[in-house]
Amino acid sequence: MRYDIEWMKEKLKEMLDEERYIHSVGVMETAVKLAEKYGVDVEKARVAGLLHDCAKGFSDEELVKMAYKYGIFVDEVLLKVPFLLHGPVGAYLAQELFGVTDEEIKRAIALHTTGDVNMSLLDKIIFLADYIEPNRDFEGVEELRELSWKDLDLAVLRAYDSTICYVIKRNMILYEKTVSGRNDILLKLGEEKHEEVF
Amino acid sequence: MRYDIEWMKEKLKEMLDEERYIHSVGVMETAVKLAEKYGVDVEKARVAGLLHDCAKGFSDEELVKMAYKYGIFVDEVLLKVPFLLHGPVGAYLAQELFGVTDEEIKRAIALHTTGDVNMSLLDKIIFLADYIEPNRDFEGVEELRELSWKDLDLAVLRAYDSTICYVIKRNMILYEKTVSGRNDILLKLGEEKHEEVF
Repeated sequence: MRYDIEWMKEKLKEMLDEERYIHSVGVMETAVKLAEKYGVDVEKARVAGLLHDCAKGFSDEELVKMAYKYGIFVDEVLLKVPFLLHGPVGAYLAQELFGVTDEEIKRAIALHTTGDVNMSLLDKIIFLADYIEPNRDFEGVEELRELSWKDLDLAVLRAYDSTICYVIKRNMILYEKTVSGRNDILLKLGEEKHEEVF
Repeated sequence: MRYDIEWMKEKLKEMLDEERYIHSVGVMETAVKLAEKYGVDVEKARVAGLLHDCAKGFSDEELVKMAYKYGIFVDEVLLKVPFLLHGPVGAYLAQELFGVTDEEIKRAIALHTTGDVNMSLLDKIIFLADYIEPNRDFEGVEELRELSWKDLDLAVLRAYDSTICYVIKRNMILYEKTVSGRNDILLKLGEEKHEEVF
């Protein structure tokens, strides 16, 4: 299916501040390149990349309200960190406001912040593009960019690791689904170590 | 209730290698001091501290077998990291081999490695004593020791944080219950930050 990307861009520009919009275009472009590299539907990657943050302009209260409206399960932790809802809410907005009915695209948008177990190639590409798009700048981003072109799964694992340590160091809530997703890919890579802790 | 600690020590010595036995006595002594400081039953802290690792001498296969025997729930992750079972299995062995029927002691033994939500004072004391007993030597242990005498909950949070980063850096499986326990105490401390990640 062909999507009207220019129309989507114009509409998205009205929903996000300039920095977030520029980031979204960066994720779109990076997702397209990763899709070409790893044999994933390029159009799906383009749309999911562009729209992944389409719910990012809403307040915590609005995100919680929309989550209830769409029937998204909101647990106690999500009530404490509602910004995590911009993924799942964004998937519904992609359909309602941008006409995206493709379940693979919607799922990649839904999971892009938290990750999850059993991510598809498209899910992984959006998750990773969000980390490494050209406007991102954090310690280790260059290594992660290089790794992304060599080993998608290992790069996803390192992105999870980086998020988890970032969250821990800053006294932030760590979402359990992120940990399950990280364990899942670690086990699939067969790279897990079995040292004992305490 | 009074426990025959000397008899327990003799019995435990036969079940563990020397280093682990010395560690167990260290945890017992530290747990007693923490119990005095924080107004917890000193005898319970003594027994739980001494016996917390009583299942540590068994192999992964033996731990899994005993877990099934005792009806302990073994999920997919625990099958990959069976050493985490030495806590819950140890609680049953404390009863079967050492005659400990006190549910608070057994619970503290069960949770000492992974932690959990809603930990009791005794649970926290054993969890923390395991980190800071005098034979432990890792980066940051001195700060954690000092903090343990000032703020039990904050020290437990920092112990969780330290374990989680340790596990992540070493490509080890991170047990979800540890993360739930850490989020729980962070929320109760009311110290969580709400920055956004991506």
